Amino acid sequence: MSGNTFGRIFRVTTWGESHGPALGAVIDGCPPRLPLTTADIAVELAKRRPGGGLASTTRREPDAVEILSGVFADQTTGTPISLIIYNKDAKIEAYEPLKEIFRPGHGDFTYQAKYGIRDYRGGGRSSARETAARVAAGAVAQKVLDTGGIRVLAYTLELGGVRAQTFDWTEIDQNQFYCPDSEAAASMAARVQDIKKQGDSLGGIVEVRVQGCPAGLGEPVFDKLDAVLAQAVMSIGAVKGVEIGAGFAAARLTGSEHNDPLTPKGFVSNNAGGILAGISNGDEIIVRAAVKPIPSIAKLQQTIDQHGQPQTISIAGRHDISAIPRITPVIAAMVKLTLADFLLRQKAVTCSR
Amino acid sequence: MSGNTFGRIFRVTTWGESHGPALGAVIDGCPPRLPLTTADIAVELAKRRPGGGLASTTRREPDAVEILSGVFADQTTGTPISLIIYNKDAKIEAYEPLKEIFRPGHGDFTYQAKYGIRDYRGGGRSSARETAARVAAGAVAQKVLDTGGIRVLAYTLELGGVRAQTFDWTEIDQNQFYCPDSEAAASMAARVQDIKKQGDSLGGIVEVRVQGCPAGLGEPVFDKLDAVLAQAVMSIGAVKGVEIGAGFAAARLTGSEHNDPLTPKGFVSNNAGGILAGISNGDEIIVRAAVKPIPSIAKLQQTIDQHGQPQTISIAGRHDISAIPRITPVIAAMVKLTLADFLLRQKAVTCSR
Amino acid sequence: MSGNTFGRIFRVTTWGESHGPALGAVIDGCPPRLPLTTADIAVELAKRRPGGGLASTTRREPDAVEILSGVFADQTTGTPISLIIYNKDAKIEAYEPLKEIFRPGHGDFTYQAKYGIRDYRGGGRSSARETAARVAAGAVAQKVLDTGGIRVLAYTLELGGVRAQTFDWTEIDQNQFYCPDSEAAASMAARVQDIKKQGDSLGGIVEVRVQGCPAGLGEPVFDKLDAVLAQAVMSIGAVKGVEIGAGFAAARLTGSEHNDPLTPKGFVSNNAGGILAGISNGDEIIVRAAVKPIPSIAKLQQTIDQHGQPQTISIAGRHDISAIPRITPVIAAMVKLTLADFLLRQKAVTCSR
Amino acid sequence: MSGNTFGRIFRVTTWGESHGPALGAVIDGCPPRLPLTTADIAVELAKRRPGGGLASTTRREPDAVEILSGVFADQTTGTPISLIIYNKDAKIEAYEPLKEIFRPGHGDFTYQAKYGIRDYRGGGRSSARETAARVAAGAVAQKVLDTGGIRVLAYTLELGGVRAQTFDWTEIDQNQFYCPDSEAAASMAARVQDIKKQGDSLGGIVEVRVQGCPAGLGEPVFDKLDAVLAQAVMSIGAVKGVEIGAGFAAARLTGSEHNDPLTPKGFVSNNAGGILAGISNGDEIIVRAAVKPIPSIAKLQQTIDQHGQPQTISIAGRHDISAIPRITPVIAAMVKLTLADFLLRQKAVTCSR
Repeated sequence: MSGNTFGRIFRVTTWGESHGPALGAVIDGCPPRLPLTTADIAVELAKRRPGGGLASTTRREPDAVEILSGVFADQTTGTPISLIIYNKDAKIEAYEPLKEIFRPGHGDFTYQAKYGIRDYRGGGRSSARETAARVAAGAVAQKVLDTGGIRVLAYTLELGGVRAQTFDWTEIDQNQFYCPDSEAAASMAARVQDIKKQGDSLGGIVEVRVQGCPAGLGEPVFDKLDAVLAQAVMSIGAVKGVEIGAGFAAARLTGSEHNDPLTPKGFVSNNAGGILAGISNGDEIIVRAAVKPIPSIAKLQQTIDQHGQPQTISIAGRHDISAIPRITPVIAAMVKLTLADFLLRQKAVTCSR
Repeated sequence: MSGNTFGRIFRVTTWGESHGPALGAVIDGCPPRLPLTTADIAVELAKRRPGGGLASTTRREPDAVEILSGVFADQTTGTPISLIIYNKDAKIEAYEPLKEIFRPGHGDFTYQAKYGIRDYRGGGRSSARETAARVAAGAVAQKVLDTGGIRVLAYTLELGGVRAQTFDWTEIDQNQFYCPDSEAAASMAARVQDIKKQGDSLGGIVEVRVQGCPAGLGEPVFDKLDAVLAQAVMSIGAVKGVEIGAGFAAARLTGSEHNDPLTPKGFVSNNAGGILAGISNGDEIIVRAAVKPIPSIAKLQQTIDQHGQPQTISIAGRHDISAIPRITPVIAAMVKLTLADFLLRQKAVTCSR
Repeated sequence: MSGNTFGRIFRVTTWGESHGPALGAVIDGCPPRLPLTTADIAVELAKRRPGGGLASTTRREPDAVEILSGVFADQTTGTPISLIIYNKDAKIEAYEPLKEIFRPGHGDFTYQAKYGIRDYRGGGRSSARETAARVAAGAVAQKVLDTGGIRVLAYTLELGGVRAQTFDWTEIDQNQFYCPDSEAAASMAARVQDIKKQGDSLGGIVEVRVQGCPAGLGEPVFDKLDAVLAQAVMSIGAVKGVEIGAGFAAARLTGSEHNDPLTPKGFVSNNAGGILAGISNGDEIIVRAAVKPIPSIAKLQQTIDQHGQPQTISIAGRHDISAIPRITPVIAAMVKLTLADFLLRQKAVTCSR
Repeated sequence: MSGNTFGRIFRVTTWGESHGPALGAVIDGCPPRLPLTTADIAVELAKRRPGGGLASTTRREPDAVEILSGVFADQTTGTPISLIIYNKDAKIEAYEPLKEIFRPGHGDFTYQAKYGIRDYRGGGRSSARETAARVAAGAVAQKVLDTGGIRVLAYTLELGGVRAQTFDWTEIDQNQFYCPDSEAAASMAARVQDIKKQGDSLGGIVEVRVQGCPAGLGEPVFDKLDAVLAQAVMSIGAVKGVEIGAGFAAARLTGSEHNDPLTPKGFVSNNAGGILAGISNGDEIIVRAAVKPIPSIAKLQQTIDQHGQPQTISIAGRHDISAIPRITPVIAAMVKLTLADFLLRQKAVTCSR
């Protein structure tokens, strides 16, 4: 059983390779009569598109999405929504030299081990290009969240060791790093510029806040809201860690420090990150993701080829210096897919009331 | 759709409340002809049972497991394995005063918000007692892992800020904290003793290493091995963060620092934590979990009751001072359930070869 | 992946063997705050219990069900409901002679082929005793249907070639065959008496009518209401055919004869059996199941043993002469499980309205 | 949760409407390294395409399929296979007059009841055009079956009351009705000709035989092979009944007549239709489906519109006179999807041996 479907009720199946003819998503289980046009999706895809920012690839994909089914007269019909994005700027020939080499930090080695065959062009299915389909699906999920007034805010908390110190949400869309701190954004730019010269790459941390989420979403035992959020976010290739609320810091707090006292006006603090016993408590949901540095670097690396022979490699293609900022809308999309699914799942729970 | 089932092929469904008559697990999809007796399960349950350690509750549950189906002549038959553990030391009356109060840091508030009804006795379904069923199921999963020579090692990396400095696997079962560093274990004991006097509680970090895992386990895209491990581990009530390999530290490394070079003899380093592009690479799998402090504390806390009225509460019942060490076998069990499932899932992939 | 779970939202997992210590069901996804007691379940189990009727086994099982979780103060809580029924009258020694023989018409041969091991005592998991758990779960499903005013009526349409000619619903519970025609019931009794003397067994047809089902239940494409009903009913061991509405007779009708005209007052006829394009149309749902004769017969039969050697066999144990009438509540239960699930699934569809 | 996905391991999701831009299927879980080209799929689609036969629509769709992902150098890679078929001959304007009318025997009424919105053009998602995607996916499933030497034979047993009397498999592809009896085929042609003049339509029965299926496929309890086959076949819009082996005739047989005796050389008879206790027994699998007459007829019919007002309707568009023969490859495809899934599911069962 393969794993290209996410969600139980709002189910998203993605398909497509980096350098195949197209990629897409099929969304099954979207409620009917929600407004939906390609423009709704395009605006989200634009956030993920390499915008000429310092950290971005020079591959130029228009990412024009088409809706092939499930929408009639700009409204969802309840039947599967098929979204397609054609690949326009695939440079297949660039990958010929890499045909038999396992790039360090990439899925080349593991795909070969798993399947005994792999589409080596741009990483095939393991490419970050796959996430375009997630972002497109996330835009549809947002339509479900709109029915509940739920809003997902995602931003760069840290890049290459530079951490945001101030948090001005209006600032997020004002700089190329989706950073709520304009000064930190400037330092991030300098850091990226510098590392680029070294032929190296950077990692960072993305933080997500979900506002307006009602109490009651999430299921015991294995499908706790935080558990599925962890899967959702960790399923993005570059993510190596996920935290909820206080996260790893909670390990060093005492119970009296960590517990969030309740008052008639709500919770006094939010170490829980908006989730108690796997169920949303009505407070802001806070998720953080650790993003590893882009594995494709110009610096010379040691590796092996498919025949087990030692090789050295310098990757000089079109790639980002950091998965940040382009991973930010992807993480937001995964959080949206998760919440849309749980919002619909909760409908079944409230059946008898 | 509720979430009490885990796994796609090796499927575990757990049931039961802290103070109900019993709790249990049904395992559907276990391959036939594996050796299995109650003794195999008892040895794992013993690791989770409060052993009189400093950090443990005084609730005394024998946790005697019965196998009700799916095993014939000490062998699995391929049909569902039903495991049951009767609750013997439930003190229902102790919870009467808590009937209408929401304990901070617990699921009382969110279960009420979600279901409009809750079994308030010991937290009902949200109690950590539920994890006994997971550990029992994990012992069955180990039987599947045995067919592939896979071994799961779980231990306490940190407790109340005290971190293990040395790593001697033979030491793990020699101290009450499952800590590979005997000196650190002694410091942990002192730290627990101290916090207990203060009527407070502690958190920590558990680390898991999977040895002998073949390359090729894990599925693209959403069911990456690390993604499902993250869900598995985060689904344990007290866990607030999950890391793979370098984890959050990866956010501050450069690509050249983080990439693990390949040589004909294997990977030179293991920042990936044994997983590349969501698929195991044959190296040791490394997972870390942040464990929050136990929310039940004697110290006075501010809260509200079901009528929204402010209350203060001091919880003087039978509870652990830290979820560590008892959570250690639970985390190991979740890792085992995940790997057993992926090991069987991989069989379908290798069909045509 | 094994197949002991049914349903997507209202999920039922059954476990247990004919001659093991117990059997049971875990229901995950039942909405909270529905009234539920063991008495609600006992009344359904009584319908399936061998009542001393002509066609019934002499195995005497009290079928006392216990609710082990998911119910608090006689109300469902939204957490998994675990039901257990202990086997009390298992006669294990009776099966020793059959240990290595494949009984014709039973699962002995195929279980051995599939698993390479089998619990030969009374057919193990393939025994009709397994259906007790389904009936118990069906009683819980009825609680969900009660919230929508849905009623399921199941009765014997035909037994051993004797077919009901009149349909008086009040008659169904008045005779041992759950037949709506008392005269036919008398003929059925004579037919059973006769075949019993011959050491042989009988088949028949059960018909189900669902009353009060709203229009809109069922999902395109693969999970059409009739498709899942077909799976549900065909999953009962003795069923070899399933029809909806006109069923096989539809194959010989013309479109003008088969189409059900619509009027402002509703449908004029019901050849559709209450389902159009896989979705309920608000009319009565009609399902028929063909039930094969009981394969255990006293008459001498030709077979082979596990070593492939020819054998003859006469089965003189405690078995029914016909699966009818005891299969009737089982078929009703499967229809209830299906409808409860679709009723909850429809909640997700109606989300945004 | 919607129902547009079929299978557990070999998972097929279909999407698309009759008069939308395209329709397609995503197959997730296909094993890697199977040979696959569009030609393999085209040959199956050709069988379903209206060939100018007497019973067929005049809508002319080339049904040219494209493979958008999951195949590299004419081999499957293990990643999702996305298939797309563009609609070329959609006549949207033809449906304007039907915009607010519920056609009898169609899903117009129930889709409106379920979703509160519907794509009225050609039935939208409920159109038989949807089955093109199933047939395309079935061709991929056959590649999996090829690895096990499994062959699926589907043919017309009965059409408009005319039943095949002789069974010559080589004849099946020699006549427009896929009938193994050439004389019966001639009578069917006459029957169709006649009913066409009357402005009416016909139903019939399709029979499927699976040859070369090994013993051991199918899962207890709910996912019995016959149960899932019943769902698969009943999920096709026009099917109103499904039988396995002796089917409804079994209801009138005695146990001694119905049981298939075993000998060292195999089963003496095949009333079981190749399935015992839900698991294949190695014998030929026999499935029959009752196909209702096409509901679109020229004859005047009574109905209502969306406002509940009475209307009369005569449907003069481009439609088949009978779903037979075009439904035959669709039924074959559903059987293939079912078997491919169970073949892969069985891999997990045999893990430990």
